[in-house]
Amino acid sequence: WTAFLCIVLVATDASSLVCYITRFTEEAFAALICIIFIYEALEKLFHLGEIYAFNMHNNLDELTHYSCVCVEPPNPSNETLKIWKEKNLTADDIFWGNLTVSECRTFHGVFVGSACSLHGPYIPDVLFWCVILFFTTFFLSSFLKQFKTKRYFPTKVRSTISDFAVFLTIVIMVAIDYLVGVPSPKLHVPEKFEPTDPSRGWIISPLGENPWWTLLIAAIPALLCTILIFMDQQITAVIINRKEHKLKKGAGYHLDLLMVGVMLGVCSIMGLPWFVAATVLSISHVNSLKVESECSAPGEQPKFLGIREQRVTGLMIFILMGLSVFMTSVLKFIPMPVLYGVFLYMGVSSLKGIQFFDRIKLFGMPAKHQPDLIYLRYVPLWKVHIFTVIQLTCLVLLWVIKASAAAVVFPMMVLALVFVRKLMDLCFTKRELSWLDDLMPESKKKKEDDKKKKEKEEAERMLQADDDTVHLPFEGGSLLQIPVKALKYSVDPSVVNISDEMAKTAQWKALSMNTENAKVTRSSTSPEKPVSVKINLEDEPTKKYMDAETS
Amino acid sequence: WTAFLCIVLVATDASSLVCYITRFTEEAFAALICIIFIYEALEKLFHLGEIYAFNMHNNLDELTHYSCVCVEPPNPSNETLKIWKEKNLTADDIFWGNLTVSECRTFHGVFVGSACSLHGPYIPDVLFWCVILFFTTFFLSSFLKQFKTKRYFPTKVRSTISDFAVFLTIVIMVAIDYLVGVPSPKLHVPEKFEPTDPSRGWIISPLGENPWWTLLIAAIPALLCTILIFMDQQITAVIINRKEHKLKKGAGYHLDLLMVGVMLGVCSIMGLPWFVAATVLSISHVNSLKVESECSAPGEQPKFLGIREQRVTGLMIFILMGLSVFMTSVLKFIPMPVLYGVFLYMGVSSLKGIQFFDRIKLFGMPAKHQPDLIYLRYVPLWKVHIFTVIQLTCLVLLWVIKASAAAVVFPMMVLALVFVRKLMDLCFTKRELSWLDDLMPESKKKKEDDKKKKEKEEAERMLQADDDTVHLPFEGGSLLQIPVKALKYSVDPSVVNISDEMAKTAQWKALSMNTENAKVTRSSTSPEKPVSVKINLEDEPTKKYMDAETS
Repeated sequence: WTAFLCIVLVATDASSLVCYITRFTEEAFAALICIIFIYEALEKLFHLGEIYAFNMHNNLDELTHYSCVCVEPPNPSNETLKIWKEKNLTADDIFWGNLTVSECRTFHGVFVGSACSLHGPYIPDVLFWCVILFFTTFFLSSFLKQFKTKRYFPTKVRSTISDFAVFLTIVIMVAIDYLVGVPSPKLHVPEKFEPTDPSRGWIISPLGENPWWTLLIAAIPALLCTILIFMDQQITAVIINRKEHKLKKGAGYHLDLLMVGVMLGVCSIMGLPWFVAATVLSISHVNSLKVESECSAPGEQPKFLGIREQRVTGLMIFILMGLSVFMTSVLKFIPMPVLYGVFLYMGVSSLKGIQFFDRIKLFGMPAKHQPDLIYLRYVPLWKVHIFTVIQLTCLVLLWVIKASAAAVVFPMMVLALVFVRKLMDLCFTKRELSWLDDLMPESKKKKEDDKKKKEKEEAERMLQADDDTVHLPFEGGSLLQIPVKALKYSVDPSVVNISDEMAKTAQWKALSMNTENAKVTRSSTSPEKPVSVKINLEDEPTKKYMDAETS
Repeated sequence: WTAFLCIVLVATDASSLVCYITRFTEEAFAALICIIFIYEALEKLFHLGEIYAFNMHNNLDELTHYSCVCVEPPNPSNETLKIWKEKNLTADDIFWGNLTVSECRTFHGVFVGSACSLHGPYIPDVLFWCVILFFTTFFLSSFLKQFKTKRYFPTKVRSTISDFAVFLTIVIMVAIDYLVGVPSPKLHVPEKFEPTDPSRGWIISPLGENPWWTLLIAAIPALLCTILIFMDQQITAVIINRKEHKLKKGAGYHLDLLMVGVMLGVCSIMGLPWFVAATVLSISHVNSLKVESECSAPGEQPKFLGIREQRVTGLMIFILMGLSVFMTSVLKFIPMPVLYGVFLYMGVSSLKGIQFFDRIKLFGMPAKHQPDLIYLRYVPLWKVHIFTVIQLTCLVLLWVIKASAAAVVFPMMVLALVFVRKLMDLCFTKRELSWLDDLMPESKKKKEDDKKKKEKEEAERMLQADDDTVHLPFEGGSLLQIPVKALKYSVDPSVVNISDEMAKTAQWKALSMNTENAKVTRSSTSPEKPVSVKINLEDEPTKKYMDAETS
């Protein structure tokens, strides 16, 4: 049903509805996914605390008295007796004291001794070692990832370390774990290529043991399922296809959804996990394919140039995932806490760049310390806060529904996000929403805003100069009105430090490049139309500014 | 003898020799002390690994079979038999199986079982918990210390958190340790005010059981000891009295040394630990008394104004240390690894600002990524590296001697540092050494250098303007020659971001303040005498620059 409904969605051009998915919906959803990643990583670590219980009240002097042995259960239940009977044993046949932990559990023995927790012996060292592995993995991968912008080593070495940060971290942590030798839980990889459940084959009967009418009634949950898959797939696609990623071959919404629909059917029949675009993994993939300017000075943010668009990485990832069946001998050395640490790292690093979190941070910041964000220039702070609170409420609601018994309506709630955003048109002006909810990246908007202001001022100055009919630009006794463009590089070279200079040069290069490759993708009917357009200036510089703006 | 020799040093005006203690000696010594702090912290953590041995080859399924009990030694040694006899016991009188770990050790029992290490039972969890406490303390205190320059919370809250960073960290870690309940090693505080060794009183006989001539021969080791105390005391004093600390009442070298000499005598007679100025603690104390400008923008380094010079903190510290005798009930909750973490933090944070380490970092940095350090402007890189290598060799030598059997000559080696520095006059020019080995802080030197260059250029420009007998400064068709001072704030305000602006303002304020309070403490016969001095300019600005330079 879900596969069928997806294909219907493709046929009815439903993907065009993605235009209603704005930054508001996108970021609430992406934030939810990131938080799920972080929560699951931490929750799994806590879960290890239950499995590997440690003795909280150890008396180190009494260690000689500590033991935990298996004994016969004093009042064996009927179930226990049945198990013994199945194995043709009585309680006396079993040498209880010699049983290992797992054997004792099999025969429903009881653990007795001062080194016993509720469900078996206390397990020494493992939990704390897991905690160390978990956080070390997280911090080490964050550190190695940032290595690109450090001052040490040549650029090549630094970017290689940064690119393979997570891989290097895992290798290092596996080596450390192996050397220390504490039996931390390891990755479990199946050793043969076969269905997990031995009682089933590769093809699943669509009806199974259910009555025939379930075939029809399944359409209702399938509808909810379709909404979820549609939203998940499309929101991820919208995030990936953002203008700021400069994709040349983005926007294959229909084809992607058709592919998802067909594969849903195939996977369902074979009883395999479904696949849709996973938000965090997709963002990580796009991030890893970024092309960035190389010649940047250390400490400076490298300039983003575009994405290496190709199909090789995707293909290789899935081929290698398939081949991992033959790598069990290596993979079984990877401790689970290291993988949880990687999940935490992925969740946290995906949070960066989500504007929603920047706005949440504003709550704890006194006004004078707030960064120069473009929307703070044009929208009053209290309205920004209201916008954030609404978004936060949606996120909390989503989380509560996901966690509660009402989880089945979760897809509806994701859909509801779009309507909440529509309702916000009532309490925010269109202009405010254009600043708060625009898909353009912050830095680009700011650059344009600065440019517009600059232009305006220049126009005013020129107008004044024109009035005085004097062509020397320094008239009027004030040095402050000298044209900015000419002065930009005229400051004494000994005062300016080299990295500032580099930044300017890079900016300049990028700007001129933008002007050269400019494509008109946004109409220039912005509310802040520069004054310069209204008066006649020399042709050349004005044209350049206009191009830059429309780009 | 040492007390006497110290007082002789005071009488002979030996403290005036501190003028030979340059940045080279100072930093090598300070670095040694910092490294000792870091090394000791890590070494103590490793030492915990020996005390709290964990089972590296635990088989979790065999936990029911693991135990470690005390048994009768199979071949008791004579010493063991003697101990038993003393207690009127034979091997049969002792219920070996019931003995605790400490009792078993007392009776020289043997530990037998799969949960036994070489020297007793394996101790679960403690070591890893200590590692977690140690590193969490280090990172948490570093994080809280940096909190001052964050954007969140009002300035008051941030600076309070930053000031009490280490205290807060200890409180948090003690609470966590208490809640988790693992028996980590705790701080041991004596419960009564009495000599540690019960067999001695408060006054120690100067001769004791030694023959009379040891009284005279003790003068030789006392001489070495005096050198060490003199160097330790004076180097620390020189570091504290650095010009960059802007102390108003520094330089009490003679009085300090007299005090040290007298107290050496008093402490020796009473058998108390000696006291001299401890480098790391003294630097921490001075750092904590820094007065810094308040109105700085977030992320910006606050401006250093001076030191709160007073005697209250010193007095209070020692009163509280004395009162800690009555706080044993609280102090005994502090885990040792937390204190080791604090030591590590103190060592690492004292390393910052030691130029020697900045120069070591240069080895791993490609030339284009090197920061704009003042000595790199005037001294060729290979000479900087040679200077660093010599200093590093001295440091390694000091370390080796300190650790080896020849530790007794360590004081001579510290003294030798001064002579090594003198020898370096042969392979470096005076000018190079003035850049590499000057006590002035980097930032101040750079500011002056920039100012000089600026002045030079302005002078050249003015000269040119004078030659052309034109008073308009923009002559010659080049906009690049516009006077810098006038242009500094004429850049379009929309391009410059607010924090840059703030920085400039703060710099400007500080500069003008320096000029007002300028005292001539350095002669202006620097090799780079600005050109402006040689030609006649307008009086006012030149005078200001000269003042600023000499300050």
